[in-house]
Amino acid sequence: MKDTAKNLEALRGMMRKYKVDATIIPGTDPHQSEYISKHWKLRDWVSGFTGSNGTAVVTLEDAGLWTDSRYFLQAEMELQDSGFTMYKEDGGNDPTINEWLARNMKEGDVLAVNGKLFSLVQAGRLESFCGENGFRFAADFDPFPAIYADRPQLPLGKIFIHEEKYSGESTESKINRVLESCSRHGADATLLSALDEIAWTLNIRCDDVDFNPVAISYAFISDKERILFIDERKVDNAERSALKEFGIKVAPYDSLEQFLEKAKGMTILLDPNKTSDTVARWIINCPTVYATSPVALLKAAKNEIQIEGIRKAMERDGVALVKLYMWIDENVPTGKATEIDVAKKAIEFRSESPLYRGESFGLIAGYKEHGAIVHYEPTEESASTLANDGLLLIDTGAQYLDGTTDITRTIALGTPTEEERHDYTLVLKGHIALGSAIYPTGTRGSQLDILARQFLWKECKTYWHGTGHGVGHFLNVHEGPQNFRLNENPTVLVPGMITSDEPGVYRTGKYGIRIENLVLSRNYKHTEEFGDFMNFEILTLFPYDSKLIDLNMLSDEEIAWVNNYHDTVRERLTPYLNDEQKAWLNDKTKKLTK
Amino acid sequence: MKDTAKNLEALRGMMRKYKVDATIIPGTDPHQSEYISKHWKLRDWVSGFTGSNGTAVVTLEDAGLWTDSRYFLQAEMELQDSGFTMYKEDGGNDPTINEWLARNMKEGDVLAVNGKLFSLVQAGRLESFCGENGFRFAADFDPFPAIYADRPQLPLGKIFIHEEKYSGESTESKINRVLESCSRHGADATLLSALDEIAWTLNIRCDDVDFNPVAISYAFISDKERILFIDERKVDNAERSALKEFGIKVAPYDSLEQFLEKAKGMTILLDPNKTSDTVARWIINCPTVYATSPVALLKAAKNEIQIEGIRKAMERDGVALVKLYMWIDENVPTGKATEIDVAKKAIEFRSESPLYRGESFGLIAGYKEHGAIVHYEPTEESASTLANDGLLLIDTGAQYLDGTTDITRTIALGTPTEEERHDYTLVLKGHIALGSAIYPTGTRGSQLDILARQFLWKECKTYWHGTGHGVGHFLNVHEGPQNFRLNENPTVLVPGMITSDEPGVYRTGKYGIRIENLVLSRNYKHTEEFGDFMNFEILTLFPYDSKLIDLNMLSDEEIAWVNNYHDTVRERLTPYLNDEQKAWLNDKTKKLTK
Repeated sequence: MKDTAKNLEALRGMMRKYKVDATIIPGTDPHQSEYISKHWKLRDWVSGFTGSNGTAVVTLEDAGLWTDSRYFLQAEMELQDSGFTMYKEDGGNDPTINEWLARNMKEGDVLAVNGKLFSLVQAGRLESFCGENGFRFAADFDPFPAIYADRPQLPLGKIFIHEEKYSGESTESKINRVLESCSRHGADATLLSALDEIAWTLNIRCDDVDFNPVAISYAFISDKERILFIDERKVDNAERSALKEFGIKVAPYDSLEQFLEKAKGMTILLDPNKTSDTVARWIINCPTVYATSPVALLKAAKNEIQIEGIRKAMERDGVALVKLYMWIDENVPTGKATEIDVAKKAIEFRSESPLYRGESFGLIAGYKEHGAIVHYEPTEESASTLANDGLLLIDTGAQYLDGTTDITRTIALGTPTEEERHDYTLVLKGHIALGSAIYPTGTRGSQLDILARQFLWKECKTYWHGTGHGVGHFLNVHEGPQNFRLNENPTVLVPGMITSDEPGVYRTGKYGIRIENLVLSRNYKHTEEFGDFMNFEILTLFPYDSKLIDLNMLSDEEIAWVNNYHDTVRERLTPYLNDEQKAWLNDKTKKLTK
Repeated sequence: MKDTAKNLEALRGMMRKYKVDATIIPGTDPHQSEYISKHWKLRDWVSGFTGSNGTAVVTLEDAGLWTDSRYFLQAEMELQDSGFTMYKEDGGNDPTINEWLARNMKEGDVLAVNGKLFSLVQAGRLESFCGENGFRFAADFDPFPAIYADRPQLPLGKIFIHEEKYSGESTESKINRVLESCSRHGADATLLSALDEIAWTLNIRCDDVDFNPVAISYAFISDKERILFIDERKVDNAERSALKEFGIKVAPYDSLEQFLEKAKGMTILLDPNKTSDTVARWIINCPTVYATSPVALLKAAKNEIQIEGIRKAMERDGVALVKLYMWIDENVPTGKATEIDVAKKAIEFRSESPLYRGESFGLIAGYKEHGAIVHYEPTEESASTLANDGLLLIDTGAQYLDGTTDITRTIALGTPTEEERHDYTLVLKGHIALGSAIYPTGTRGSQLDILARQFLWKECKTYWHGTGHGVGHFLNVHEGPQNFRLNENPTVLVPGMITSDEPGVYRTGKYGIRIENLVLSRNYKHTEEFGDFMNFEILTLFPYDSKLIDLNMLSDEEIAWVNNYHDTVRERLTPYLNDEQKAWLNDKTKKLTK
């Protein structure tokens, strides 16, 4: 019997003991994080599924795991013999979690969850759902301490200060701006639960979560008090003093409950999508205001120092990528290089920079059919050996003190097929159309999304994932509030926002193609007649694979755009390259003509 | 003193008498109609502004009129010496009505309106606004009966049955589908207030409102009762019998209040955006469910008979337009043809069809700078005389028993300038991109909107109006729920929806360009790999002006699209043309090549 299957049985034992008929184990933590510390990987422990998005739902008789199209193939593999059935969140007609629960529960049954792992909004929806269906709902079910013997402890790494020469804004200034936003909502305090929001506001970083340089903590900010709730072993004297300079006290992580229960005489702003149900219920003597966290929008609009930092980080990252792709060119013929080696080499080349602080997510190297698994991460067992044939998709990013990178390139090992070139060029056209868009102020990312999809749609092809996500500054590689997606998102693009531009197309069993740059929203032009317009600066610096471009499918403008971009890449990276590397890059960026 | 200025003074007299500090007079009627009967043109009477969208707000000292960009120039002209200041609803930084009221009222002041002219949603928002600002709100202020001496009576025209050979669905079937929708919302009855929804559901038409073939009425539909509330003088015996066949009783228009007050033992579905605040308050003994009217979506998806009808109507309309544009060609050189003559001739040529039932809106003929007034309707005083020079924009539509048309073409009289050709071609490229779009099922109109704007945006140009509106079937030329707009609209496009595709660009004082077709959403292709896709059938049949097309700005695909469209226009219209007309159309549709 698979280990996770035994874990599932242990969970059901606890469900029987506490008269719970159904439970939900999301892939998040008490801070509603996307990437989480091992301590919180409860869904992985019970189901075996390790993707960044997935929700396990367990009844006494059945179990389902819901995930999105990036993970369909991975989930199918990982869930074998787990007792879980995979259900598609998008691009299919599978039941939703609620539909499935409605079928698998009967009147009077109890759905119980751990309220720390559900935002106020999510818990509220579950409660309504239960009410409508005659089920009972409880948010106090935490069976894992009793059954998960070797559960990893919460991490004890030290926090460090993210210096103003990188962050571009003092903690004092950030706190003041946060409090001003609170005040506009009629609140005089806020509790921050989201780890990246705390890191940004207090200019602190840590390594509690793989890839995300955050510290597990809560932050309370008011006119009168500024408290960082964190395991105090994580704060050395230097950092404690630095925080004290800005009036920030340090208190134990688990003293938040007591603090909130005693709090009174103020109105507290909570983001109902980022605050857990449990934490929100600890506030009993203060009125609360629910609103989008004031930090989200402030954090999304990068300042000039952050922007200059990311430009430099992109140059360093581009140089490392030149080395990585040269290494691939040289090592494919040996017949020994694997997908895993690509991941290892990326870290090796990036580590040459002193500002490097690790990867921003696990490198995705998808060779041939693995490329169709949208968020495939090679493991020792699954890794393919690269050969002089087929497509290789590499999606990778890094954390530098001065910025976070995220880039996808798809290259042809050997000579690509006509179908591969055709699909690649469709994706490239969409990638260019979005990256070169000009748009009036007030435009939302959801309006621009179709620019990246239109050429695929013309041939009845599509991709199910979003076209782009916000990116943090030496912070989470996925951040809100803006994005490029099919779904409506009311966030308007403002200057300083960094978002990815990453359309793709995936042919199961054959190959995956994705092309990704990070783009910076900026003011472009004021006109008397038609108002103000914005466009994007392309931040990412690495060439596209010309072998995969069918020039006959590109307009003259598109070809000029690629040539212009390649010129920029060459000019910006060349100063840091040796002669051999320069020659390689010159070849990869040579002018395309019909 | 201008008449409307006297009317404004009379209104202020009533405000003083009833201790009202501010009032709002919207441009709608108790059915929340866009086009209204003269009886309800109270905003026109008090302000002089005659556009289809505009809201008058009056305090004892000041008065403002809010309208959208289609009407900015018209409003500025019409509001001269009226005592009203124009404020822009879009494309500017003018205060909103609420912002303006907040500045012009003080605590304890009373905002009073006629609750029949505000939907439940609108009245609710006003009430909240007043609550937040310390104003009092009343929805029972109807000063006009006392001050508007020569107010037109409600119209007494006869209703007639829209035969099933045109509507494609029996009243019985429609009522059953409406009740099924109600049932899905937990309701067993609905009150319809929107005139076009009543006309569609009961298959009746009338001429109570210019351009919209509707009857002023309410309809109540439940499992047990079906009642049309209407002035009984409007219903002849034949129609009364026809309605009776489907179990529909006729009751006096003003007996609705009594009926609703007595109603009990059922749950009534109300569309809070289409039901007036006053009417909703008449329901006192029944629970209500608020939801989008079930009729809106049913009515929007046209059936096969309606679609075949609109195709035929488009052929007839196209033939009338050939005659109209030939008349223009012949009469411009006389130096006597005016914008008004174009409107008169359109009616004359369309009247040759026995199925013609009038225009679907007042013809817009905008010559030169008049074209920049987005919804300009020529009057005897304003009408320009056409000459062999400059652009002429004609936006016109008709009501036929088998469908409603709406088309805009912009033509060059004489030789166009480079700027005119450049702008025209940008608009045409957007018009083609939207009309030729392929999109997965589940796509919303707001996602496609940018296809029509992208080429203008690239040159920092734009237009402020929506790109497209839903169109009724022998009903209102503007109908919901779908549209193509910058603003999010959650309505998904489904097969059978008819929407306009009408981007434009407007250069104040110089010219206006708009190009409009009606397009039909339809299923296009099922794929195993990527799901189901839809596209559009272009319903409108009339050539673009080749003189205005800069072929160097079009791709080969775009040129092929125009040629293919022109071939279709020629093939579909030619059977109904005489030799001279054929020759004219052959010339206008001759193949374009670079």
